[in-house]
Amino acid sequence: MSWSSNEIHLANRPTGYPDDDTWSSATVEVPEPGEGELVVKVDYISLDPAMRGWLNDVRSYIPPVQIGEAMRAICTGSVVASRHPDFAVGDTVAGTFGVVEYALSNGTGVYKIDLGVAGAPTWLGALGMTGMTAYFGLHDVGRIKAGETVLVSAAAGAVGSVVAQLAKAEGCRVIGIAGGPGKVAWLKEIGLDDAIDYKNENVLKRLREVAPKGIDVYFDNVGGDILDAALANLRRGARVVICGAVAGYNDEALPPGPKRYMSLLVFRATMTGFVVFDYEDRYPEAVAAISAMIADGRLVARETTLDGGVQAFPEALLGLYAGVNTGKLVLKV
Amino acid sequence: MSWSSNEIHLANRPTGYPDDDTWSSATVEVPEPGEGELVVKVDYISLDPAMRGWLNDVRSYIPPVQIGEAMRAICTGSVVASRHPDFAVGDTVAGTFGVVEYALSNGTGVYKIDLGVAGAPTWLGALGMTGMTAYFGLHDVGRIKAGETVLVSAAAGAVGSVVAQLAKAEGCRVIGIAGGPGKVAWLKEIGLDDAIDYKNENVLKRLREVAPKGIDVYFDNVGGDILDAALANLRRGARVVICGAVAGYNDEALPPGPKRYMSLLVFRATMTGFVVFDYEDRYPEAVAAISAMIADGRLVARETTLDGGVQAFPEALLGLYAGVNTGKLVLKV
Repeated sequence: MSWSSNEIHLANRPTGYPDDDTWSSATVEVPEPGEGELVVKVDYISLDPAMRGWLNDVRSYIPPVQIGEAMRAICTGSVVASRHPDFAVGDTVAGTFGVVEYALSNGTGVYKIDLGVAGAPTWLGALGMTGMTAYFGLHDVGRIKAGETVLVSAAAGAVGSVVAQLAKAEGCRVIGIAGGPGKVAWLKEIGLDDAIDYKNENVLKRLREVAPKGIDVYFDNVGGDILDAALANLRRGARVVICGAVAGYNDEALPPGPKRYMSLLVFRATMTGFVVFDYEDRYPEAVAAISAMIADGRLVARETTLDGGVQAFPEALLGLYAGVNTGKLVLKV
Repeated sequence: MSWSSNEIHLANRPTGYPDDDTWSSATVEVPEPGEGELVVKVDYISLDPAMRGWLNDVRSYIPPVQIGEAMRAICTGSVVASRHPDFAVGDTVAGTFGVVEYALSNGTGVYKIDLGVAGAPTWLGALGMTGMTAYFGLHDVGRIKAGETVLVSAAAGAVGSVVAQLAKAEGCRVIGIAGGPGKVAWLKEIGLDDAIDYKNENVLKRLREVAPKGIDVYFDNVGGDILDAALANLRRGARVVICGAVAGYNDEALPPGPKRYMSLLVFRATMTGFVVFDYEDRYPEAVAAISAMIADGRLVARETTLDGGVQAFPEALLGLYAGVNTGKLVLKV
């Protein structure tokens, strides 16, 4: 037997935002697994800002998606056939299966998830790469300490909302930046001390009001003007954690750099980049910590789930960059 | 008795390069010292890239020079009158006396120098704030280790030439960037492994050739395109030390930021700013280390000395930004 898998493939590398020319639909016959392999039926697909970078043919922390390949994506699913010693039919798993309905895998990077702990979308969000990014970025790169003032951009997004709540739980004062009154209201609801609506407020001015003594840790998901505003409002010894720069991911040329970077000198501050994959050995530590916080209500794991299957992926990705989501954005297959 | 001191005062804050309107000449009568004071006859004045920043009325690591005040400068000189317990007439000293011929001081920040160890210009260079900047920036901020590849910009300048030689002495491979064949030849002469002439070579391309595995530590004195070229050529775990950004100090608007800063993420790298004054407690450690290296020939302390007294200061400062100097630039009074 085999499985017929509808998939979204990369047809052409985009300049600027991905469009109709970027993607092609394909139907692939997924064969019975060979020795050491398994077949997964994909249930949920994770939408991640980093996806745009994976489309560029440049040297980066991960090779680009190749033309004609299925688009790379992290997914949850269930095992429908297995000749792999670690996985049995019926297991619920997560892995980088792609924007596909069925995936043949050799088990690399595939791990079992427990739907008793949280639903599949949460395993792509607060308990997935998203949550890992928040946890290690904040603790290991940002080195937050109780009593410090933490600023996070895209705070109502997948990574940002976990960062904000982890920092609150650690005893920090937390300020979030998000776009629109709905997101700002939600940030207050989940316990942030202040939230700035960058679409309707002057971030530089508001930051001076809400953090007159400056920011100890800035967790940056966006780059651009918001990074500059944060740099202008650091406290001495501040740590700027570079997680992403979604503001510029779809620009045709390299976007401008942070023109206030000399603030690093004035404030004796550090700007550090990181890639979550480097912390893979320690994911269990983060999963245990975040699961416990979800269980006792200290952390709200929120997801926005889109319907429409793999065919809806191109539009879902544009929605991510437009900020349609609060919390993690996932696509149901 | 009193001393008649010719001085250069700040008349107007410049936009862009300082010009005739920026400065005024003044003659000030310096009185006999009161209890706890001393009078110093200034011999040499240090020219520092940071001086341009001191003219701007902005919050920074040090207050700006005020309109009508003598221009701030670090100097060497000799004590001509003293009612201070730590200083006697005839002592040779260094301190922030300003662009003046005679200074009345309460002794704050004044320290004795030993002309038997090195000449006065060297006490403003490799054994002065310049050398302290190189030493602590490289060791404490850059955390260099033997065998690493170190890149330094403005490598034939005051700070850069000390950085380069300290890194060589530590067992690093050292690449310098400087402007013009004369400077590049000198860098080879003092032992650098490679030197790139940014005025006549493509820095990005040459860096890829001379450091195909990337840079572990980049000591940045200039900012601008050279910082971007370095960011594009980091090695994993690299440290970028932000010491200065002379390329933009005289720009009328804030110059562009490093557009390749997302390399910090790709290479899991850190960009850190520092201010040498924070290491004041440890200056004796650095002076001892650098003196020993000068004594046994491991470090060449080179200075370019201009004549003309305080009146020559405005032109000397422009010369500094034009790069007339190899090594430290000082003005003889």
